[in-house]
Amino acid sequence: MRLTALSEVLPGEPVTNRDMAERFGLHEKWLEKMTGNRSRYFCDPAGPEGTPRTTGDLATEAGRRVLEAAGTDPSALDFLVLTTASPDELMPATVNVVADRLGLNDLPTFQLTSGCAGALTGLYTARSLLAGGLRRGLVIGADSVVKLWPGDGDTRRARPAELANFALFGDGAGAALVEADSSGPGFAVEHLLLRTTGKGRAPAQVVRWYGAEGAPLVPGPNGTEVREPMAHEDYKAIESRVPDLAVTVLNELTAVTGWKLPEVDYVLPPQLNGVMTEKIRERMGVTEQQAVSCVADTGNNGNALPFIQLCRALRRIEADGAGAPAGDGSRVLVTTIESSKWVLSGMALRHRPAAPDREHRDVR
Amino acid sequence: MRLTALSEVLPGEPVTNRDMAERFGLHEKWLEKMTGNRSRYFCDPAGPEGTPRTTGDLATEAGRRVLEAAGTDPSALDFLVLTTASPDELMPATVNVVADRLGLNDLPTFQLTSGCAGALTGLYTARSLLAGGLRRGLVIGADSVVKLWPGDGDTRRARPAELANFALFGDGAGAALVEADSSGPGFAVEHLLLRTTGKGRAPAQVVRWYGAEGAPLVPGPNGTEVREPMAHEDYKAIESRVPDLAVTVLNELTAVTGWKLPEVDYVLPPQLNGVMTEKIRERMGVTEQQAVSCVADTGNNGNALPFIQLCRALRRIEADGAGAPAGDGSRVLVTTIESSKWVLSGMALRHRPAAPDREHRDVR
Repeated sequence: MRLTALSEVLPGEPVTNRDMAERFGLHEKWLEKMTGNRSRYFCDPAGPEGTPRTTGDLATEAGRRVLEAAGTDPSALDFLVLTTASPDELMPATVNVVADRLGLNDLPTFQLTSGCAGALTGLYTARSLLAGGLRRGLVIGADSVVKLWPGDGDTRRARPAELANFALFGDGAGAALVEADSSGPGFAVEHLLLRTTGKGRAPAQVVRWYGAEGAPLVPGPNGTEVREPMAHEDYKAIESRVPDLAVTVLNELTAVTGWKLPEVDYVLPPQLNGVMTEKIRERMGVTEQQAVSCVADTGNNGNALPFIQLCRALRRIEADGAGAPAGDGSRVLVTTIESSKWVLSGMALRHRPAAPDREHRDVR
Repeated sequence: MRLTALSEVLPGEPVTNRDMAERFGLHEKWLEKMTGNRSRYFCDPAGPEGTPRTTGDLATEAGRRVLEAAGTDPSALDFLVLTTASPDELMPATVNVVADRLGLNDLPTFQLTSGCAGALTGLYTARSLLAGGLRRGLVIGADSVVKLWPGDGDTRRARPAELANFALFGDGAGAALVEADSSGPGFAVEHLLLRTTGKGRAPAQVVRWYGAEGAPLVPGPNGTEVREPMAHEDYKAIESRVPDLAVTVLNELTAVTGWKLPEVDYVLPPQLNGVMTEKIRERMGVTEQQAVSCVADTGNNGNALPFIQLCRALRRIEADGAGAPAGDGSRVLVTTIESSKWVLSGMALRHRPAAPDREHRDVR
């Protein structure tokens, strides 16, 4: 399988830590120090038509952009995969609404419920679909967390465990166009691993959905009653386990490919937040030069993240490699850990640029 | 691909139309006449530990039963697929909780968001995973609708569009063990089709999820305020479109396999409700003898239905074929239509019984 084009979507303007303080009552310095994040992006659910308001809007835009970047007509697609933890509705699957909006019909669609391992779960599924005889498809990862926030946007009544979620997460989408033929330009997938490792371990992140009645009321600060928080995060479990799991994935990728770590051009570490990602990078033995991270600017936007990292890796490959001979291509390793119920995933890619005469051919 | 074992799970006792009248204030005769359903099953969310309370409980039990039926150890599985429209939480994916409870670890898992086309979407995904090199997996379809009901279980405040959902849907799960090798006993998949047909068409079923604040209040009957219903169904669109779509699927299956409809032993029609399914059967030209339906007894339990129909087809094959020579096996066609955002799916199966000496070998 080969990723022939990529896209990223970040809605609206970056929301800075100062904005978070002014708009939502979070502490600017605490955000800065605890998360290491400088900004994140949010959909505006009350925004005008045509602006990104939901996961489905973000996913549609990511799909549009990648088809445009590749100059591919929607009719050339054999399948559509969307991965998300934040669907617009329970039914219909958001993927089928996105399909309609992209002008897609008469093709199989798949919506995978995933968190941080979602992008690679989508690509794993796509690789299987290609192995089963389909030729070309679109894989989108998208998430929007604003729907999890209190209705009035006031976080002052929220509990610490809930505030952590507001502090860490953001909205976004990314997509890849994938093809069975791995021999042309783009990112050829040399290895892709995906497996649970959650047996007997409690989930470290839980996001609830509620029915018409909403969350039950539970005791809040100062004798108040508050709605049960939608999201719970066991930050300590994540902090203590993710670095080792990232090393496990990295070791497996280097073992299978036979690549020594110093020979790898770019490594995409798990993107929890600026502080944690930096710790994980060090623990993995990845140099600052090798690492491609974005979470400190984008926030953790779950299923979108690896696509956004890959977009940034591609920009660096193009900048670093300008004018250089292609050789055997750039080596890229992707590592993602889903700490919700513990899923390991990783991918080894070889990037080959378009041949110098390729562009010329395309222009003729 | 071959389905080597099947399971079905229906929680608790059948809930009759009289029960529905007594417990939820629905009209017994209306239920009987409008839906043609005699009963359905519901999880008890407040039931004791160990009883089925949620989608995840149903899915786990379906997985357990199919592994037991096949005498297969969980460690022999290469992957797990769950399809559902009613996950326990947004995160973690219910599939990963089910994996843990089944003793599964170190394998890829996939949770697909689907409705009535879910079972076949899961099997399509499984077939691709097998094409990609995995050998054996478990596909589960499960749904529980009780979480969509008003918190107090009182449907008297509900609107007609909401009552229709209470009337039609039920809880349940089903599962299939699948293997790449299609030559042994069980259901060999000869054709499997899956494609959207929703371009430019509004979804005929919408199920919302709400955040902590719950559904907004909207004007209700007699000047009251009620919560916005979670589920909306355009029953007319379903009634007018599904029969033709079922014929489309049936025609494609007979064309691809070369089977003439009278030569087909069993046909599984879409299971909307007793009345509609009977109309669709007639429109498809399927005889009462050929049809395998269950919805009038089980209610529409979405992702579980085709597995439950297959379990019943298998029992009929075993009863009809007792002592008969195997020949080239029974021919079975499965047709499902997802009317949420319009997905067509169908499957042609050839069932071959275990060879007479097979059981003997297994016993030794």
